[in-house]
Amino acid sequence: MLRMAEPLIHHRSAEFRSLLSRVTAHLGYLFQTGDPVLTLTCSGTGGVEATFVSLFSPGETVIVLNGGKFGERWVQMGRAFGLEVVEIRTPWGEAADPLVVASALRAHPHASGVYVTHCETSTGTANDVREIARVVRENSRALVCVDGISSVGALELRCGAWGVDVCVTGSQKGLMIPPGLAFVSLGERAVRAASESKMPKYYFDLGTALRAHERGDTSWTPAIALVQGADASLAMIRGEGMENIWSRHARLAGGLRAGVAALGLSLFSSSPSNSVTAVRLPGGVEWTAFAAALRKGSGVTFAGGQAEQAGKIFRIGHLGYIDEPDILTAVSAVERALSACGFAFDRGAGLRATEGEFFRLTAHGGGR
Amino acid sequence: MLRMAEPLIHHRSAEFRSLLSRVTAHLGYLFQTGDPVLTLTCSGTGGVEATFVSLFSPGETVIVLNGGKFGERWVQMGRAFGLEVVEIRTPWGEAADPLVVASALRAHPHASGVYVTHCETSTGTANDVREIARVVRENSRALVCVDGISSVGALELRCGAWGVDVCVTGSQKGLMIPPGLAFVSLGERAVRAASESKMPKYYFDLGTALRAHERGDTSWTPAIALVQGADASLAMIRGEGMENIWSRHARLAGGLRAGVAALGLSLFSSSPSNSVTAVRLPGGVEWTAFAAALRKGSGVTFAGGQAEQAGKIFRIGHLGYIDEPDILTAVSAVERALSACGFAFDRGAGLRATEGEFFRLTAHGGGR
Repeated sequence: MLRMAEPLIHHRSAEFRSLLSRVTAHLGYLFQTGDPVLTLTCSGTGGVEATFVSLFSPGETVIVLNGGKFGERWVQMGRAFGLEVVEIRTPWGEAADPLVVASALRAHPHASGVYVTHCETSTGTANDVREIARVVRENSRALVCVDGISSVGALELRCGAWGVDVCVTGSQKGLMIPPGLAFVSLGERAVRAASESKMPKYYFDLGTALRAHERGDTSWTPAIALVQGADASLAMIRGEGMENIWSRHARLAGGLRAGVAALGLSLFSSSPSNSVTAVRLPGGVEWTAFAAALRKGSGVTFAGGQAEQAGKIFRIGHLGYIDEPDILTAVSAVERALSACGFAFDRGAGLRATEGEFFRLTAHGGGR
Repeated sequence: MLRMAEPLIHHRSAEFRSLLSRVTAHLGYLFQTGDPVLTLTCSGTGGVEATFVSLFSPGETVIVLNGGKFGERWVQMGRAFGLEVVEIRTPWGEAADPLVVASALRAHPHASGVYVTHCETSTGTANDVREIARVVRENSRALVCVDGISSVGALELRCGAWGVDVCVTGSQKGLMIPPGLAFVSLGERAVRAASESKMPKYYFDLGTALRAHERGDTSWTPAIALVQGADASLAMIRGEGMENIWSRHARLAGGLRAGVAALGLSLFSSSPSNSVTAVRLPGGVEWTAFAAALRKGSGVTFAGGQAEQAGKIFRIGHLGYIDEPDILTAVSAVERALSACGFAFDRGAGLRATEGEFFRLTAHGGGR
């Protein structure tokens, strides 16, 4: 964090260009792609907007997978820009079925893009991006557009090898720096689409951003302090290695899931993400009392459920620079809070199960 | 700066809402308005885009004053969003004539907005926002839209009293925190216009931002570290007081102008801004040699000219937390670099004149 309090360099200097080119190279590694990855000054939502306005023209059809708050946001966004949005709804907590995607593509053979949220944060659900990308590539000419906002740097994602045309993430997720930057990878087919897009745009024009990128620059004044933070963060990511990062997240999520199961709680998602875990509140435990007990007993805050799941689930985020002790702390906090709420369970069972799962996964090679 | 390296608070917490409401109240003071001032995560250019897409509908007419790179950018931006842009061009280095604005309004009585760049950074020119706002209000129902990106917090600007409907600034200018936030004030007539706008938009929808503002929130995840920085910066601004800040900038700019004049150099602008000074390079002094001499002799970087003025002028920025010693340092750097370039002048004359002007302005009450 201190890196961001360093004196700022000027964004039209050779020093900034060298910083940006280092960040850009590391972003390619993070996204596992040889495509350019552009740095925009906005939140992740702004990054997704840049893809909508830069790659399509009003009236074109895009298919959007909607299984939660974020999928819903991309549906609204596409419609706001005059796209014909075909919505594939999935019940909250379930992953999208690639076969349903294939049949939507048959029904809409001229679809120009398919949007998939890799990790739906609102429900703790991971979608099978690899399989969906394969299906889209095999059945259509639509661009594979991935919301990687809470997955890049946590869940296995190989944009290059899997044929992802565009992927967006935000600075505050897998990179664990403060929010304010979005990163957007742009494959060759997406670059071509950008050159044909008729959507009105200016700030979020990825064509402009790509030309600036080619001369080692950004379109507009960037959030320089955050670019400096990203540089430090990406160096750490490079040091650990993507495969190790993915297996660490798998191990931590596995340990957490084992822990909550041992307490008699059940997961909300049938396809749980390795970056965020949504857990059903057990009968008799009220969300407000549980949240207050968490704060009081452990000084910990978990997110509650959103919209239809408000008061019914709680969500534990675990992406970025976290390790086993953080998960044990979370499980212990859940135990204390459940206890304070009068819920009956075998105390310590969660911690024991979490640690057991860590051992098991480490022994099986998940722990390198 | 260290304030930004503090642990981040979560943006959906009571703590963030209290931070944001403090920042918002201080922003009203900075803009000198009782209107809401919204915080967006983007550069100043993004803030201006938010006004174009939120206040107008495709096909409407807006008048844009263009006397440099930024005026030109707003012309392009308006056209990118399908607006009929009436461009009032002013030669670089000259302020726009309010009478010309009045006649443009007579020729285009249905114009929905007039955009004026308060300080045109590319030329170091200040426009008379007060008079232009008066003319617009008297002659039309058009919204007065002010690019205050390099003026807010430096040049006298009273959005409320002067009838400015919308004003935009960026975090890295008068606030002197890193770039990444834009602030947009929204008067009553602008709020009404926002409710009628038919422009496609999502991220930059000021209607959404206003509703979020009313519940103490932002539309999307904000650049929290920068909001924390703005809080510290605005407390300093409040402590010094706007009138004092304006007179400090007037005094510093006056001292700098006296200094360069005493060296035999001339200003580029006939209406020089108190936040940035553009100076003509004297005959026989080449820009690249001058810039290199500045770096070598004093470790200082000044901006060069842009577009048609490249190689012909240099620009010294002086807005934010700067004081008399910074201006003396700048004048001394100019003297050294001119000397290194073989330009003949009375050495020390610049410093003497600058200091003399500081004394004079302080004695006349400009120094409080």
